[in-house]
Amino acid sequence: MSLIEPRLLKGFRDFLPEDMILRQKVISIIRNVFELHGFLPLETPTLEHLDILSGKYGEEGEKLIYKFKDQGERDVAMRYDLTVPLARVIAQYPELPRPFRRYQIQPVWRADKPQKGRFREFYQCDCDIIGVEDITAETEIISSVHDSLKALGFQKFCIKINHREVLNGLLAYAGLEQNFLLPLCRSIDKLDKIGPDGVKDELIQNGFSNAAVARILEMLQVNDPVSAFAMDLVSEKIGKFVKTGSAVLQLRKLFGYLKESGIADEYYKFDISLARGLDYYTGTVFETVVSEPKIGSITGGGRYDELISIFTKEKIPAVGTSLGLERLIEVIKIFELLPVPSSVSKALIVNFSEETTGYAVGVGQLLRANGIPCEIYPEPGKLQKQFKYADKLHIPYVLIRGSEEIADGSVVVKKLADGSQNRIPLENLIEFFKSTP
Amino acid sequence: MSLIEPRLLKGFRDFLPEDMILRQKVISIIRNVFELHGFLPLETPTLEHLDILSGKYGEEGEKLIYKFKDQGERDVAMRYDLTVPLARVIAQYPELPRPFRRYQIQPVWRADKPQKGRFREFYQCDCDIIGVEDITAETEIISSVHDSLKALGFQKFCIKINHREVLNGLLAYAGLEQNFLLPLCRSIDKLDKIGPDGVKDELIQNGFSNAAVARILEMLQVNDPVSAFAMDLVSEKIGKFVKTGSAVLQLRKLFGYLKESGIADEYYKFDISLARGLDYYTGTVFETVVSEPKIGSITGGGRYDELISIFTKEKIPAVGTSLGLERLIEVIKIFELLPVPSSVSKALIVNFSEETTGYAVGVGQLLRANGIPCEIYPEPGKLQKQFKYADKLHIPYVLIRGSEEIADGSVVVKKLADGSQNRIPLENLIEFFKSTP
Repeated sequence: MSLIEPRLLKGFRDFLPEDMILRQKVISIIRNVFELHGFLPLETPTLEHLDILSGKYGEEGEKLIYKFKDQGERDVAMRYDLTVPLARVIAQYPELPRPFRRYQIQPVWRADKPQKGRFREFYQCDCDIIGVEDITAETEIISSVHDSLKALGFQKFCIKINHREVLNGLLAYAGLEQNFLLPLCRSIDKLDKIGPDGVKDELIQNGFSNAAVARILEMLQVNDPVSAFAMDLVSEKIGKFVKTGSAVLQLRKLFGYLKESGIADEYYKFDISLARGLDYYTGTVFETVVSEPKIGSITGGGRYDELISIFTKEKIPAVGTSLGLERLIEVIKIFELLPVPSSVSKALIVNFSEETTGYAVGVGQLLRANGIPCEIYPEPGKLQKQFKYADKLHIPYVLIRGSEEIADGSVVVKKLADGSQNRIPLENLIEFFKSTP
Repeated sequence: MSLIEPRLLKGFRDFLPEDMILRQKVISIIRNVFELHGFLPLETPTLEHLDILSGKYGEEGEKLIYKFKDQGERDVAMRYDLTVPLARVIAQYPELPRPFRRYQIQPVWRADKPQKGRFREFYQCDCDIIGVEDITAETEIISSVHDSLKALGFQKFCIKINHREVLNGLLAYAGLEQNFLLPLCRSIDKLDKIGPDGVKDELIQNGFSNAAVARILEMLQVNDPVSAFAMDLVSEKIGKFVKTGSAVLQLRKLFGYLKESGIADEYYKFDISLARGLDYYTGTVFETVVSEPKIGSITGGGRYDELISIFTKEKIPAVGTSLGLERLIEVIKIFELLPVPSSVSKALIVNFSEETTGYAVGVGQLLRANGIPCEIYPEPGKLQKQFKYADKLHIPYVLIRGSEEIADGSVVVKKLADGSQNRIPLENLIEFFKSTP
């Protein structure tokens, strides 16, 4: 038979051990923070009926859904995000507690153009609170984002926060109709990239009047780092529009609660130019950015009070966020934010010869029974080869039990970093490892 | 818009929190045992080029692979097991250490007929050692199986062990040609179910001569619980066939090493009737059975020295095993083998009114900063509703901070199990939780 070339599909990745050790560490830290906030774990299937996912992700998203006919000629689709499956779950199991806090950490698939930092299979880490209109829910979500990033070692980041009704107020202040909302959001979303002049040019090209553009630019200036001050300005200028006024009150409350959550001022700010996906969100929106490297947002979320009503008549409010694992890991790698153990095993137990393999196995059993990860070199043979293996895997210690050590009930412990070695009675071996960092 | 019915595809499942808490616990225990044995984590993509998976799982398996054409008209297939992707990885990354120990815990998909206990999406937990011919590798794999099951609380199980060359010896002893191997294996595999008479009838129906059947039945009697004794018999009767003789020596060594690994005699046995999938395995085969409930094998594995050569010219020996998460969990649930916490949060912080929400948030921050999982009821309102919620979620404590407690810097801690309550100064709250089991 001719060989089959071992290769991957474009946009898909193998995670070899070195990557996996870091990924597992990051996931475990995020899971721990989510559980500290009382979120309960959920998993949904990879495949769903196509109509569950279809029509929820906009025109562009629709094209990116992996879909096919299964063996029973059913139209099926692969999980595209974790929010729509959650909405289905909420509608399908009315017995779930309300409010319902759930977290979900699973891969999703998008048939996107593969490019640097963009993959067709990637993990999302979501937490959501279902059944609550109060801004306390937002507080819990944003606190989870903040605490996750801090636990992952992030020192510089900013959670930008806005509200859809603030954008509507801005539209009204500029004297524009609802159909201008989308182009408005698209342009001001680029404020950081293209600056006020760039936004101005784009708006005018899109048919906005000079008067409208002037008022929009006036309002964009409220992006003051001190959120309370910015809120005062927004309140003064566009707070008269009823829903905007109430949104400003909500945001003020939120900022107060975030302070009580122990979040320092530098980690969040009101940002009038933040829009995110408007099809989806109905109230607050938020995302986290880092100044370095330039990789876009690392988390994103908001309130979506109408999504679940696709599946059930009951109106169920909801708010949540998604942490993008791949971008988080990119930043963690670049700035070496997390110490990552370079090996799993603490010791390699040398396998001299067939006559002594049994003794090596016995030492392994002793260590493992005491919670010390180790491995027996699975083939009797040359020491040199076994040392080289331990070196390649960064295993810190090599244990040697030859006939002499077997005779006197000891074991030689060799530290690979400096080549030093000690003969230790077997009964002291566990103590040695427990007292070694 | 008309409602979309929230529903699942047949054979697929949602894991709601109660299930997920148990699943995560089981996975974390297995991962820990794998790491104690020095296995390194690996993940491979959900989608592979179809030719990577196709033709590896036999005629029946082939039909069960989920396959389709993606947006780029490429033939793709969903992960069917964790062994073939591992073989691809080994061939694709020659820089990986050798021997290479890897574990992998991921879902796989098979378009099987959904029936009780059989799903189209399910998790496998695999560990394998690549690049080793020596039986020490088998020892490490079987020790991982044993230690995993013990760590999961299993008290009664048996790892059956056989060798393909023992089956070949049996065939030769009965005077049969190689083409009788498959029907022979199929029949003796049912020995436990249909007994020796059933096996006899089936063999005769399949055209085995009376003389051949007599010899086969003679050998089936060696299934003595004491493996060493059975090995003596096998050795005496069929050890003269060269490869069988050497296989018996290997098995004897293995049983000796398993003893050194701290595995009690009751947990493993030589079983001449164990065949497993013959397309695949080239040496040892093993599987774990439980007497109760009747659910077939809960782990299975063996040596596959030729699989990797589908992808590379180099001959690379390999041995490994797979633990079936779904069956393990079924047994764990039936016999309540693992204590499972009924809630994630240790405390619900009552949200009285808008005026006091900030204080509730502050208490949450204090607990979380000290590693105590808790949640703030995300909506100010009636106490009764909030207590009911805590009850439904089995949250053990409710913390109440009304105007009185805010004034004197305390918090009321109510234990829901017995309704008892204490007012505690805020600075003693962490101590209270740390000293409470």
